[in-house]
Amino acid sequence: MIKVGIVGAGGYAGVTLIQLLLRHPEVQIVWLMSEEAHRGKKISELYPHLSGELELACQTLDELEKIVNQVELVFLALPHGIAINYVPKIIEAGKKVIDLGADYRFSDNMVFKKWYGLEHTTEKYLQQAVFGLPELYRAEIKKTRLVANPGCYPTASILGAAPLVKKGLIGLPSLLVDAKSGVSGAGRGANLKTIYCERNEGIEAYAVNNHRHMGEIEFQLSRVAGQPFNVTFVPHLTPMTRGILATIYGKLKKPVSAEQLTALYKEFYQGEPFVKILEGRTPNTKFVDGTNYINIAVEVNETTGTVIVMSVIDNLIKGAAGQAVQNMNLMSGLPETSGLRQIALYP
Amino acid sequence: MIKVGIVGAGGYAGVTLIQLLLRHPEVQIVWLMSEEAHRGKKISELYPHLSGELELACQTLDELEKIVNQVELVFLALPHGIAINYVPKIIEAGKKVIDLGADYRFSDNMVFKKWYGLEHTTEKYLQQAVFGLPELYRAEIKKTRLVANPGCYPTASILGAAPLVKKGLIGLPSLLVDAKSGVSGAGRGANLKTIYCERNEGIEAYAVNNHRHMGEIEFQLSRVAGQPFNVTFVPHLTPMTRGILATIYGKLKKPVSAEQLTALYKEFYQGEPFVKILEGRTPNTKFVDGTNYINIAVEVNETTGTVIVMSVIDNLIKGAAGQAVQNMNLMSGLPETSGLRQIALYP
Amino acid sequence: MIKVGIVGAGGYAGVTLIQLLLRHPEVQIVWLMSEEAHRGKKISELYPHLSGELELACQTLDELEKIVNQVELVFLALPHGIAINYVPKIIEAGKKVIDLGADYRFSDNMVFKKWYGLEHTTEKYLQQAVFGLPELYRAEIKKTRLVANPGCYPTASILGAAPLVKKGLIGLPSLLVDAKSGVSGAGRGANLKTIYCERNEGIEAYAVNNHRHMGEIEFQLSRVAGQPFNVTFVPHLTPMTRGILATIYGKLKKPVSAEQLTALYKEFYQGEPFVKILEGRTPNTKFVDGTNYINIAVEVNETTGTVIVMSVIDNLIKGAAGQAVQNMNLMSGLPETSGLRQIALYP
Amino acid sequence: MIKVGIVGAGGYAGVTLIQLLLRHPEVQIVWLMSEEAHRGKKISELYPHLSGELELACQTLDELEKIVNQVELVFLALPHGIAINYVPKIIEAGKKVIDLGADYRFSDNMVFKKWYGLEHTTEKYLQQAVFGLPELYRAEIKKTRLVANPGCYPTASILGAAPLVKKGLIGLPSLLVDAKSGVSGAGRGANLKTIYCERNEGIEAYAVNNHRHMGEIEFQLSRVAGQPFNVTFVPHLTPMTRGILATIYGKLKKPVSAEQLTALYKEFYQGEPFVKILEGRTPNTKFVDGTNYINIAVEVNETTGTVIVMSVIDNLIKGAAGQAVQNMNLMSGLPETSGLRQIALYP
Repeated sequence: MIKVGIVGAGGYAGVTLIQLLLRHPEVQIVWLMSEEAHRGKKISELYPHLSGELELACQTLDELEKIVNQVELVFLALPHGIAINYVPKIIEAGKKVIDLGADYRFSDNMVFKKWYGLEHTTEKYLQQAVFGLPELYRAEIKKTRLVANPGCYPTASILGAAPLVKKGLIGLPSLLVDAKSGVSGAGRGANLKTIYCERNEGIEAYAVNNHRHMGEIEFQLSRVAGQPFNVTFVPHLTPMTRGILATIYGKLKKPVSAEQLTALYKEFYQGEPFVKILEGRTPNTKFVDGTNYINIAVEVNETTGTVIVMSVIDNLIKGAAGQAVQNMNLMSGLPETSGLRQIALYP
Repeated sequence: MIKVGIVGAGGYAGVTLIQLLLRHPEVQIVWLMSEEAHRGKKISELYPHLSGELELACQTLDELEKIVNQVELVFLALPHGIAINYVPKIIEAGKKVIDLGADYRFSDNMVFKKWYGLEHTTEKYLQQAVFGLPELYRAEIKKTRLVANPGCYPTASILGAAPLVKKGLIGLPSLLVDAKSGVSGAGRGANLKTIYCERNEGIEAYAVNNHRHMGEIEFQLSRVAGQPFNVTFVPHLTPMTRGILATIYGKLKKPVSAEQLTALYKEFYQGEPFVKILEGRTPNTKFVDGTNYINIAVEVNETTGTVIVMSVIDNLIKGAAGQAVQNMNLMSGLPETSGLRQIALYP
Repeated sequence: MIKVGIVGAGGYAGVTLIQLLLRHPEVQIVWLMSEEAHRGKKISELYPHLSGELELACQTLDELEKIVNQVELVFLALPHGIAINYVPKIIEAGKKVIDLGADYRFSDNMVFKKWYGLEHTTEKYLQQAVFGLPELYRAEIKKTRLVANPGCYPTASILGAAPLVKKGLIGLPSLLVDAKSGVSGAGRGANLKTIYCERNEGIEAYAVNNHRHMGEIEFQLSRVAGQPFNVTFVPHLTPMTRGILATIYGKLKKPVSAEQLTALYKEFYQGEPFVKILEGRTPNTKFVDGTNYINIAVEVNETTGTVIVMSVIDNLIKGAAGQAVQNMNLMSGLPETSGLRQIALYP
Repeated sequence: MIKVGIVGAGGYAGVTLIQLLLRHPEVQIVWLMSEEAHRGKKISELYPHLSGELELACQTLDELEKIVNQVELVFLALPHGIAINYVPKIIEAGKKVIDLGADYRFSDNMVFKKWYGLEHTTEKYLQQAVFGLPELYRAEIKKTRLVANPGCYPTASILGAAPLVKKGLIGLPSLLVDAKSGVSGAGRGANLKTIYCERNEGIEAYAVNNHRHMGEIEFQLSRVAGQPFNVTFVPHLTPMTRGILATIYGKLKKPVSAEQLTALYKEFYQGEPFVKILEGRTPNTKFVDGTNYINIAVEVNETTGTVIVMSVIDNLIKGAAGQAVQNMNLMSGLPETSGLRQIALYP
């Protein structure tokens, strides 16, 4: 049994981690941390459905140093800029970290500063961090002590675009990502933007051209492409709780059919336990609800020479907690799919 | 490994059975049957999210006799009146049956006829059938070959009311059940009543005084009470996919406090693996989404002498497929919770 | 043209008032007030859909005395306990007031104190206030300067129950109201209870036995009954933006058929411009979305001797702003339906 | 008073027409037609919320010739291929027609045949028809007897793109339309694709590259551009009842700022009663719910040289029935906004 601690347990990524890990055959949750207002509260006070499942009370980050030794691995699900202060301590205590926040997703401090307005004081760890997308960096993940778990939009976008970008099939800078997200991506914090009556029965774009995940997508696709790579990224808040659909567009350098591209995607992701390439139908976010799967389909508009990739994930699972568990499995020598074999809860 | 077949695999109860059984450690799905229009279609054509999970094609009921010997147990998820024709054949072939439909829920043929307008031609099996509510009939379920799996409204209503009725705490005929159901209770069939635009953003009562589940609730509570027991039952279609909340009202014969009743409920359901009695908060259907749990809370209006019980289930799991798996576990000597340890997918 | 001011314009009742009054042929909105944080903001900054429709900026209550003379009538949509401080000033300035809050709904100070924990310092006005339910108090409304606009649950409940109570058809204290409300009833304030992911796909009871509207229903039905009248009231938060369905139950003193009761309701509400008695079908909240209508249907369970009334309104219109406009029309000698002839926006 | 008849009254476009026209000060609905199954049924049997508002019974198309003389103008809301058979008769009887279907949207028979697989037998009328987008063809609409009312996606897409295309600001064929529609666009017919449980909590693309509205958008934008113009069009089914958001992307031929483009849009649509150009915020479909407005905002990604236009309408109003009423007003010499002054029902 691997003993783990969860920091940020009170948020939606945190509770999803708990839900997954409570049924993971090889993991024991030893402690939970949440914000000051939750100090001493049982997690089942915050989430009544956990009553009888996990009776831990929430601690706070000031206790980290005291209790970090009780675990082998720490999950951090924090707003950006906070993990920076704690990751070094955890690593130096000889533990592993999976950071679900943004602090270690850019190996280039300047890019991090551009998008997040913060300076990395401990650049050493920035260099050590592995971007936790197993489909692209499995070998590195297995060997690292520090994983920067990808954001939800980047997971759907990068995995959806990677085969095209890697093979150099699309022109620069033609890549467009029109992404549709459920409201849970905004977290559990109460604000006018997330209340039911403002979101229900309405869809809107937001953070056009300046969503921080755009920086993450560009940075990571530049690595895949081997050259600087800009994208146009427009996220949309969609009236549903879970799920992301990224509809990705690119101009093909030369004519390729949808069938050829589908074959290419199948080959690219061959053997991947959580990637399904659909044929003859478009993916619906419902197909992956509650699962760690990503479903992808590819179409081509031959008249305009445009490739259209549709990529769906559950934003809280493959886009956050599920991928974190997948990374934990890899870092810990467990079967990659351990604890992650859920089938969608359909309908 | 127990080999099973599923009849009615194309409906929502059927697909939920598949979703549960694919992750059940002791079960193998050997064949599927669905309606004529699905003959020969792979289940993943009907439900794309099952692609790669189960590649069986649908057969039809005319093949039942030929293939019933391949399995030990058959799940039937059929409209009422059809199972009657097949249950005898399955039993006579030496197999077990769990009928998720209504045909064997009334041990009294006259009551069945009253509510369903049909005559049981094989009354012998009607007598043998056990009503599959493990919290009330566990011992009988373990010994039978034929389980009549309860309806969704009856599961929430009977388990919510049973302690009060059993202990004779409420006057006759004061029991009222105001039930709120998600739309999936109406099945996958397309009709004007279930289309998105007619259901979204609206709630309405339906089948007031004549919903067939009212007959089932009355029949079963009469057994619990040991005397004829009438209820007022008003179901409501609620704009959500899953879940039932039964708000149950009764006039208390003498003053009892909410605390006393909560203690009574806790004792009544002590040791039950899927019953949670909540204290200090009301149950939300979200708490049990995707799980086999029932959550119950009890309140009292002391001024009017009214007890108020709130009972929530996932209509497709504890209200259908999950309870069927629980019954299968009991009939087969497996741990009762095997394959049913899901935690709610929250949010 | 009647000149009006709206206090509490930033909330959902306030914006609904604006939406109705902007198309009212006889009304001009002269000023708006909202909370301190909105001071100086144009209403279209708070509600972008009003851009180009109304370009007023929000003022705050400290300016009331200065500008009250610019209008003939003031709408107050405030949290309870605040209107008390301003109503006397408005009346003494010779203006009319419609208070959409709770402060003047109880002509008995003790009852107000019991439910709201506050003392009325100006009991004189409490006595003058008319409860603004035109179907019961039209004559008084026409003559008053101060209307206490009913709450949303009370509107649906009282109008649904009044014919039964008035005619003495049901036993005491058998009246039960199981009410289902859309989330907009909770207002525009952001808190954990109202965020999308906590409300979507889930229904739950809340404030069982202690919702303040229970006091209002009891107080007003006691007036209708001519004797103290207690009810059991259980509100439920339902995953939809708008609408209330009150399902009302009572024990009939003697057998009466649904047809007889339907005829009684039709007679009771004959000539009422906003009451529709449905026959042969149950009311859906969708039928009244965006309108000032209340739809009511009556059924009887003859076995248990229970009457079942289903009553639906749009909580923000007939349950708040629409009823306020109806009251304004009456107080101002305008046609009662002026500005209120909307048909439901269906689907 | 203008007397009108509505063919296809049983569908969502039809009922929306009824809702609008019942409050139109200059219009009287004289008769309704619907499908064979509705013959003789009162419209309030199909739509209970119309009870007491309109008590007409549905007739069927075989009665058209008999009753066409009772009206001055006929609205047709029919599946494609049917209007072709009736438009000539109505015109030849000296009446006006507004066809909400697709049959007269292409002045080129070959293009119509390509997308709809049908031959126009009466090409004469095809030439006479005016495409009913008042913002582009107001003068022609005023003079015609036959208006082809635009589709919902084309309305949002063409008005969103027209200023860019007209001014030649974007390269060919770079225009992409990623459109998100509510479910009501699929009509009131019951099928698996539109039932609540299949649509709720999920978003998916559909009809990629072959939605018929793509043909309409290309055809009409070619007219605007003065040269053949291809687009990439991907519609998405979104879990909401009403509303379309078209997010439109194009490669700018030369650098232009968002501010410059916003100014251009404001000028292009100056004086238009139903077009609002938003600044400093993105449009939400909620802002136009229940209204004939279109809201548009423009952004630019300067790094990739991409213009992003967001355009929202209520698909049943500006995208269908409201635009039809706007066209009727123009054809009849009424004020263009008559009967169309609704403000969004928010929230």
